[in-house]
Amino acid sequence: MASLEQISTSLPLVGAKKGIQQHPLGPLTASEITESARLIRALWPANTNIQFKVITLQEPNKADLVPFLAAEHNGQPTPIIERRSFVVYYLRNTDKLHEAIVNLSNGKVETNVRLGPNVHSNIDGEEILTIEKIALADEGVKAEIAKLQLPEGAVVISDPWIYGSDGINDDLFTDAKRLFQCFLYVRDPNNPSEADSNHYAMPLSISPVVDPATMKVTRIDFLPTGVDASIKEPSPYKVQQPNEYIPEAQDLRKDLKPLNVTQPEGTSFQVSNFSEQGHEIAWQKWTFKVGFNQREGMVLYDVHYAGRPLFYRLSLSDMNIPYADPRHPFHKKAAFDLGDAGAGIMANNLELGCDCLGSIHYLSAILNDDKGEPLNMPNVVCIHEQDNGIGWKHTNYRTGRAAIVRNRELVLQSIITVANYEYILAFIFSQAGEVMYEVRATGILSTQPIDEGISVPWGTVVHPGVLAVHHQHIFSLRVDPMLDGSLNRVVYEEAHPMPRDDFNPHGVGYTVSETPVTTSGGYDLDYDVNRTFKIQNSAVTNPVNGKPVAYKIMAPPFQKMLADKDSFHFKRAEFADHNIYVTSYQDGELYAGGKYTNQSRGGTGVRSWADRKDNVKDEDIVVWVQFGINHVPRIEDFPVMPCEIIKVSLKPVNFFEKNPALDVPPSVQTFNKSVLASVSHQQEVGEAVIGKSGEVCCVKESRKL
Amino acid sequence: MASLEQISTSLPLVGAKKGIQQHPLGPLTASEITESARLIRALWPANTNIQFKVITLQEPNKADLVPFLAAEHNGQPTPIIERRSFVVYYLRNTDKLHEAIVNLSNGKVETNVRLGPNVHSNIDGEEILTIEKIALADEGVKAEIAKLQLPEGAVVISDPWIYGSDGINDDLFTDAKRLFQCFLYVRDPNNPSEADSNHYAMPLSISPVVDPATMKVTRIDFLPTGVDASIKEPSPYKVQQPNEYIPEAQDLRKDLKPLNVTQPEGTSFQVSNFSEQGHEIAWQKWTFKVGFNQREGMVLYDVHYAGRPLFYRLSLSDMNIPYADPRHPFHKKAAFDLGDAGAGIMANNLELGCDCLGSIHYLSAILNDDKGEPLNMPNVVCIHEQDNGIGWKHTNYRTGRAAIVRNRELVLQSIITVANYEYILAFIFSQAGEVMYEVRATGILSTQPIDEGISVPWGTVVHPGVLAVHHQHIFSLRVDPMLDGSLNRVVYEEAHPMPRDDFNPHGVGYTVSETPVTTSGGYDLDYDVNRTFKIQNSAVTNPVNGKPVAYKIMAPPFQKMLADKDSFHFKRAEFADHNIYVTSYQDGELYAGGKYTNQSRGGTGVRSWADRKDNVKDEDIVVWVQFGINHVPRIEDFPVMPCEIIKVSLKPVNFFEKNPALDVPPSVQTFNKSVLASVSHQQEVGEAVIGKSGEVCCVKESRKL
Repeated sequence: MASLEQISTSLPLVGAKKGIQQHPLGPLTASEITESARLIRALWPANTNIQFKVITLQEPNKADLVPFLAAEHNGQPTPIIERRSFVVYYLRNTDKLHEAIVNLSNGKVETNVRLGPNVHSNIDGEEILTIEKIALADEGVKAEIAKLQLPEGAVVISDPWIYGSDGINDDLFTDAKRLFQCFLYVRDPNNPSEADSNHYAMPLSISPVVDPATMKVTRIDFLPTGVDASIKEPSPYKVQQPNEYIPEAQDLRKDLKPLNVTQPEGTSFQVSNFSEQGHEIAWQKWTFKVGFNQREGMVLYDVHYAGRPLFYRLSLSDMNIPYADPRHPFHKKAAFDLGDAGAGIMANNLELGCDCLGSIHYLSAILNDDKGEPLNMPNVVCIHEQDNGIGWKHTNYRTGRAAIVRNRELVLQSIITVANYEYILAFIFSQAGEVMYEVRATGILSTQPIDEGISVPWGTVVHPGVLAVHHQHIFSLRVDPMLDGSLNRVVYEEAHPMPRDDFNPHGVGYTVSETPVTTSGGYDLDYDVNRTFKIQNSAVTNPVNGKPVAYKIMAPPFQKMLADKDSFHFKRAEFADHNIYVTSYQDGELYAGGKYTNQSRGGTGVRSWADRKDNVKDEDIVVWVQFGINHVPRIEDFPVMPCEIIKVSLKPVNFFEKNPALDVPPSVQTFNKSVLASVSHQQEVGEAVIGKSGEVCCVKESRKL
Repeated sequence: MASLEQISTSLPLVGAKKGIQQHPLGPLTASEITESARLIRALWPANTNIQFKVITLQEPNKADLVPFLAAEHNGQPTPIIERRSFVVYYLRNTDKLHEAIVNLSNGKVETNVRLGPNVHSNIDGEEILTIEKIALADEGVKAEIAKLQLPEGAVVISDPWIYGSDGINDDLFTDAKRLFQCFLYVRDPNNPSEADSNHYAMPLSISPVVDPATMKVTRIDFLPTGVDASIKEPSPYKVQQPNEYIPEAQDLRKDLKPLNVTQPEGTSFQVSNFSEQGHEIAWQKWTFKVGFNQREGMVLYDVHYAGRPLFYRLSLSDMNIPYADPRHPFHKKAAFDLGDAGAGIMANNLELGCDCLGSIHYLSAILNDDKGEPLNMPNVVCIHEQDNGIGWKHTNYRTGRAAIVRNRELVLQSIITVANYEYILAFIFSQAGEVMYEVRATGILSTQPIDEGISVPWGTVVHPGVLAVHHQHIFSLRVDPMLDGSLNRVVYEEAHPMPRDDFNPHGVGYTVSETPVTTSGGYDLDYDVNRTFKIQNSAVTNPVNGKPVAYKIMAPPFQKMLADKDSFHFKRAEFADHNIYVTSYQDGELYAGGKYTNQSRGGTGVRSWADRKDNVKDEDIVVWVQFGINHVPRIEDFPVMPCEIIKVSLKPVNFFEKNPALDVPPSVQTFNKSVLASVSHQQEVGEAVIGKSGEVCCVKESRKL
């Protein structure tokens, strides 16, 4: 099934053992990155130019990790686990992709293999900028741009896109290569000095294809702009009005008053380091470790509530965004933003007072650049508390006494920019034992030119001459559970009407049944039977009601991938066809779409692992939770899109003995310090309103707040 | 179809015209309530004891209202619309239910009809308390309680429940009567002086049935407590440990720091009165009127954004909560909290610093008591702004410049207590033209006794001897639209794969189609085709893309009513079988389950109206949006339930020309005043961690925040 053809290499292993003992889950330190690169470089002749794609922690095998964490939690001496890094690199300007594992504890490169053919690595920041330039500097491209007769001083922009595979000419050398499809835009020619002018409002129909190995344009595509697949030669471009998102281009609202969050006694959470680059968070009975890597960005490990184990590891595992336009070259658009680019490396430096309110703690990270040097990623995670309304309330109507608590949440947020689009990614913890994963999709729609006056059923015209094509966002959250122990199962609950009989003579009764998932595979929601998936430890039962302890998975429904089952979109996005996948745990199975998604061809992700048909009942399992939206663009999503919010929740079911938030202190005025708007900031002005016949019909109380 | 048999009465009309001109949508004033009651009392002999159930605004016919609102918005003289009240009353201690319309402008009772048979009105506050006492004072009930041998000083509590109809003995006088089923509980006998002890943790098996006309116990039921329908004679009660929700019974968390919302320049909204009891809100381009009535609580009228009409009227129209236990008398449990009790009359007095954060404005209301006197309902609506994270963001990766706005929302919140349960009901407005309706279900599960050591598939044991039965919450939001005008339609969008052909050779294309709803009826979501309902004005098109202006309805899916189609639960909850109902507008069709839900028998709600098969394409239509949850109780939902949040959203689609929140001022530090937790409130403490062999393996930075 594996499409990775591994070519063993037996190169001499060099490097020296370092004295630093790190926690096995601690992200690589700067010196570990430097050392990893040094050890890789030492494998090759001195003048070899290596393009490092990824230098990241090779997480330990679970068989080693579990006893380590157990010892750590028990305050016992921890076993020694050797530190390893996972390195992906090209010999620069070739298609020679390598994958290596470096043992940092003994300074040895343990494995180093060339991958391929047809295995390609992610884009990196340096490469993006170079490809942009190559596409625009090409003489052929310049000649085509000239035909547009753009105004003097106009600035053309190039957005390189990952070149999705389509199964056509698979074995021809040119198509088996790693390629980038560049989409071109012009910045508003009437305002060319504005570097933040929204070029997505002015898409061009010229699309160069660049080979990053040769750094040459290999082909120039012309984009279809009509109702069919026909293409036209570039012709003089009609400059439309701009459509800007920057504030200085707006007539800003003047009536929005400040809303500040103050935490006079500081935050309720504590942050410590469990390793040089790894952070441990403690908040309201929760404890967990936070890692950060090039691909997934934030990763949570070793999540406990009130000392009870819940999850070994939580992370966004993958995402895929297939587009609806079937015409060449748009049919290739199916981004895997994590595998093709990286949620870690694309993370924003979050700015105080801009991305969160209140008392904010930032985590920074260290990743690598293409030279193998450490790359500082400041403030890539912000941690703050938020108030999410009422947590619970009950009023005893006999006594009039209300008992009420507010719903404080802890948020770990990271924001990634992938060219035009933004994703705001957050883990959110509640005081009631719930952990949520929230995605906010925002940023700018991917646009393409469309002839004026036409419409097509696979996209929305969002500006004159601008089409935003329908697309799906399909995410996969990887949940590696340890509910009260390593061996868990997945069950699904369904509610069914009771038959009409002597016991149910009125036809109103219903029951809830529970079915265990025994075999690895993909499973789906069904609202007609209220099907609900739960992760359960069948060996541990609730002391009050005897039910196995469980967490339920609350994931919103979504339309599964629309591309047909024989399409490359479908083959590649191995997670996009089911709400839930359950697999047996295997070391290294971290990414639902496979390890190498760029121009991937399928067969290396969760669907393939599930096809092992492993027993997953009361085993060490992994649960993959898919969610997403079919984004049919509204014109209101342009020039920048109001956040579309999608949320997954993991919620205790008979795991505790009571409402876990029962002990949250009551919501009271001495604590909350709310103020009466009508007292503190309001002038009351009486206004007599005159009726039809001139009489004063009523006196209005107009409150200026 | 109508089950209301209207008995005309021709009683003399009395009363004097009053000089007060009120806005036609203004809730009744105290004097209008008093006057309405006076006019009704004057119909009857002087010593007639009238039990007023409802005295509320009879909203004007739409044919009259529309020109009034148009004139008001244009600043023209408004036509005179006579003020009317709608009055429902019993001749006290009889089953003689009357419905009257009082013309307050001319002081005449315009109609006064006796309803029935089999039409029953809502419970009222005075009645609840009286029935509680009657049930407990009954000698037969006392004798049964004595058999429990409760400890001396123990306090028994009675919760009267609406007595759902079941079609059994329909025509027998006793079952056609209005009745209350009382469920009994004991407060913790070891702490009998604690009036807020949670009696729902100690349910008893004795259940008296009370006739509110005679105020006598007509029957004593015994509750089945085993796995079948058999019942047992009361026997000595085993006192279990209590399960309290009040804070003094908890070991409260000590590590939660205050989080305050401050609005140093006050709020961004303005509140004025459009009538003595009616309020108009202006906030961030939104304007709307707020009414409040006994049944629906908050009602919004005349909702505009940036001067463009959106909705005539928005309100929670109905809710139904059918339970899963098929055994007598539980099979009758199917509460209609609005029609059986009233979301207005059950509304909490919201307390500063307890229910919302920040600068709060409260609205108070005036309803009526059972004597026909005005009843002050202070602080039943709280209005405040909240920050809901990031509104939109884009970073230009070329320049590094981020443009970002926060997502400020306006919240109008009301909280109702219906015996054990609470609903937190809120309209939420966004700066991007979106209006949301949010329900938070909280409070205490309805409980019943269960024998120890058993479990049943229709409920969850949440405490020793306590069963919380599965139940559905099904809500109906009534949306009366006027998107850019009165004539609207509902359409649904679906996304379908393109066939594989020359145009779609790779099998990846998909299209979105739109189908208008032409005939009134019930319609359903289908996630497999991404079916999305939109309200549209086909006569007004978007100037940029030519699409009809629309708002889409984002409602989460839910399991439809499980009770079978022949059951009384199904017949009564006429909205519970479809996600969306579309009907033609008819005056007076406000409540999806019908006007009189108490012991209703169906045929008077939205399903019946939809059965007219009216044309609803480009007509004055009403859209009924159903949503809900199948609540399979967790033990974590007891003794008080963490909020379960359900949200419906009405969202512009091609209604505006751009993102309506584009003009929100950028999120900046000078405005937000966030602070760095690590700077302001953190002491950094180095901790050397010793490794296995005694060496210092790493230095931890422990941050005390």
